[in-house]
Amino acid sequence: MDGNVDIPSTDEELSLRIKEAVGQSNASELEALLDPLTSSEALREVLQLTPAERDTVLEIVPVGLAADLVEEAPNEMAVELVERLKPERAAEIIEQLDSDIQADVIGELDTPDAEAILSEMDAEEAADVRLLSTFEDDTAGGLMMTEVFKFRDTQTVGNVLRELASDDEDFERYRGQHPYIVDSEGRAVGVVSLRSLLTAKRSEKLTSIMVQPLTVTVDTPLEQLEDVFNDHPFLGVPVVYADGVLAGVVSRTAVAEAILERSESESLKRQGVVGDELRSMPLSLRSRRRLAWLAANIVLNIIAASVISAYEETLAAVIALAIFLPMVSDMSGCSGNQAVGVTMRELSLGLVRPQDAVRVWIKEISVGVINGIALGILIGLVAWFWKGNPALGLVIGTALALNTMLAVSIGGVVPLLLKRIGQDPAAASGPLLTTITDMAGFFFVLSLATLMMPWLV
Amino acid sequence: MDGNVDIPSTDEELSLRIKEAVGQSNASELEALLDPLTSSEALREVLQLTPAERDTVLEIVPVGLAADLVEEAPNEMAVELVERLKPERAAEIIEQLDSDIQADVIGELDTPDAEAILSEMDAEEAADVRLLSTFEDDTAGGLMMTEVFKFRDTQTVGNVLRELASDDEDFERYRGQHPYIVDSEGRAVGVVSLRSLLTAKRSEKLTSIMVQPLTVTVDTPLEQLEDVFNDHPFLGVPVVYADGVLAGVVSRTAVAEAILERSESESLKRQGVVGDELRSMPLSLRSRRRLAWLAANIVLNIIAASVISAYEETLAAVIALAIFLPMVSDMSGCSGNQAVGVTMRELSLGLVRPQDAVRVWIKEISVGVINGIALGILIGLVAWFWKGNPALGLVIGTALALNTMLAVSIGGVVPLLLKRIGQDPAAASGPLLTTITDMAGFFFVLSLATLMMPWLV
Repeated sequence: MDGNVDIPSTDEELSLRIKEAVGQSNASELEALLDPLTSSEALREVLQLTPAERDTVLEIVPVGLAADLVEEAPNEMAVELVERLKPERAAEIIEQLDSDIQADVIGELDTPDAEAILSEMDAEEAADVRLLSTFEDDTAGGLMMTEVFKFRDTQTVGNVLRELASDDEDFERYRGQHPYIVDSEGRAVGVVSLRSLLTAKRSEKLTSIMVQPLTVTVDTPLEQLEDVFNDHPFLGVPVVYADGVLAGVVSRTAVAEAILERSESESLKRQGVVGDELRSMPLSLRSRRRLAWLAANIVLNIIAASVISAYEETLAAVIALAIFLPMVSDMSGCSGNQAVGVTMRELSLGLVRPQDAVRVWIKEISVGVINGIALGILIGLVAWFWKGNPALGLVIGTALALNTMLAVSIGGVVPLLLKRIGQDPAAASGPLLTTITDMAGFFFVLSLATLMMPWLV
Repeated sequence: MDGNVDIPSTDEELSLRIKEAVGQSNASELEALLDPLTSSEALREVLQLTPAERDTVLEIVPVGLAADLVEEAPNEMAVELVERLKPERAAEIIEQLDSDIQADVIGELDTPDAEAILSEMDAEEAADVRLLSTFEDDTAGGLMMTEVFKFRDTQTVGNVLRELASDDEDFERYRGQHPYIVDSEGRAVGVVSLRSLLTAKRSEKLTSIMVQPLTVTVDTPLEQLEDVFNDHPFLGVPVVYADGVLAGVVSRTAVAEAILERSESESLKRQGVVGDELRSMPLSLRSRRRLAWLAANIVLNIIAASVISAYEETLAAVIALAIFLPMVSDMSGCSGNQAVGVTMRELSLGLVRPQDAVRVWIKEISVGVINGIALGILIGLVAWFWKGNPALGLVIGTALALNTMLAVSIGGVVPLLLKRIGQDPAAASGPLLTTITDMAGFFFVLSLATLMMPWLV
């Protein structure tokens, strides 16, 4: 740390001093303040600044620190940070990142922005990025890095040892990669274990100590990569094209991070937040994205409400029913969502497949019957004693019991059916389930009440 | 694969053949069927069996395959699988696992079961497990493995190379650990890079090529480990006790998996599924766990419904209001949950802290005002044209607009406030928010309607 800068003693002081340093474009003070922080602390500080101030930070701090901030930021925020910079500066920062992250960031930019930055980058790195951005996100091609620790089949153990010794990057740079051996066509033909490397003579040919590598292809999906890393202890697996040519290496860490991201974005989608919103995004974008989902939800709500509308006479006769309508639909919605949650988890753990819908349904209906009866009795008693009318208790209790059974059994299978027809279960299960349980809940309460009318009034 | 066994051509045939082999206790057929599958496929097949059949599988297949199944299973299921076995067999299987997973499984067992298994295990491994289970789950101590690639400060480069060459386990066993150097007291005093190991003379002392290691202590929390691995490229970091004695190594992978697990269990808790339910668990347990949460939810629903009850006269006069009550409360609940989702994500990304509540509130209220006005106009028009009453449209639209503003601004800060008072935001935010928005929604609609009564009837 710079000797001239005191360490701020509180968070507030730190934030204030950072804002000041940005205002004065004081690069050395800014570096001294941000450098001792962890990347996530530094990023949090930077996000509290206005967009213009953030630009200043990324322009004036050393390029390594700027790259740390971009790397730490979730993808959609990294893009936001980079696209506002001059292309030369953006290129400088992006060149510091691993190739897989480079591709993620550049792949999200508008084409003109991306081209402007790529043209400022080292030609070879730019070519790698162009290549990587052609692959789907959640495939080995989209997750691999092109920095590969590779050797020709004509080289010797000595070549590898010299490379390890001379390179100014350490083994960590390759995230635990082993030396991969390629033939004259670039095909992955072997991998050398560290042990054989250490015990072989320096003059020995790599071909005589290498073993056949386990490989995946560029289009291997994330689920399968997860299985590969679960079944093998490797830290990285070579990725090849259909013709066997080595394209890159996908690391255990990249796969673990992709799984985490998918799980988090699914959990957001279930709450109607699409596109991984962050509060640093522009207000209009955030508001628009959320509204799109809510507007669709209004339509579903109107459909459900039309059931109530059809029974206005019954409601007018027994006004107390209006008190219990939201309760019945809300409770069943919760029960159904529990079942959705369990199925979503089992889907992501690979414990259940879309074709297992019947088995899941059988498992869920038992929970639905037990919980439906228990909740029905509970709320029936509440209705009876609250309004002093046993018939009302019977109507409300029976309606909740039936609707809970329906909600739980539908909730368990809806994600599987959506997945089978190629829809996204994370985004669609909740609204679909809620609409069905609302409609059914209103229908059960009001039609039972119509039947029981003589005892209710 | 066994030459005597045909490969089943369909999933159904596979499942059937596995069930048959289990029925006949045919170990070699079972192995031949399960071995070619990935661990997750094999586990899925095993989970379709009855508990008694599952026991048979784990008893008769080779111990390595049984260990793969236990390792692949989510923690709570692994425990279920193991506790039903004879202690000797359970011990045999558990000895195959990494020490961190051993501790996770044994830590979840009832004490008598755990002791029975530990007493059958190798004494040294059992001692490690006992030690590891004393640490909290989401700390370096709980996540570390005790298998450490370590050397004394009196040893030489040659010692390390000989160990690497002689050991029948490969470097992968240590998940990319570097050789750590300890002094006579067992304190971690150095780490040796692969490069220096390869370029140094065999006779050189490790102390002359080692560098100071970055360490964490046994009680370092998960969030901080996340920062460490984000800021450094290491595949593993040594874990020490307060006195500097080396306890184990926490790997990048273990941290990534713990983060994923936390994120998934948070997302389940938000849907009222506590304790990471799986469908293979006993029905009574699943039903009871879900009911506990639902029963609490009934109480909250009754509180909200009591607002409707207070306005029964208004409802009786304008029965159409009953149609829109569930709609207003549901729509605002959704809006609020979107804000909860964004805050939960920013919390887990470390972009926001509990003390940032005011900043978050300011950011959210702007979204709330825009979306509240938009949705209010929309639903106001729907109500007006549906029931042909402009005053009704005004009441419903205004109520939704106000309630959306409230829901969004509360939703953004509720998780932060819960976290600040030490409550679990994942489990409590949703129910708390929904109760508030239900009560407020009913109140806005019915009190505005009471004010506007002359124009409504």
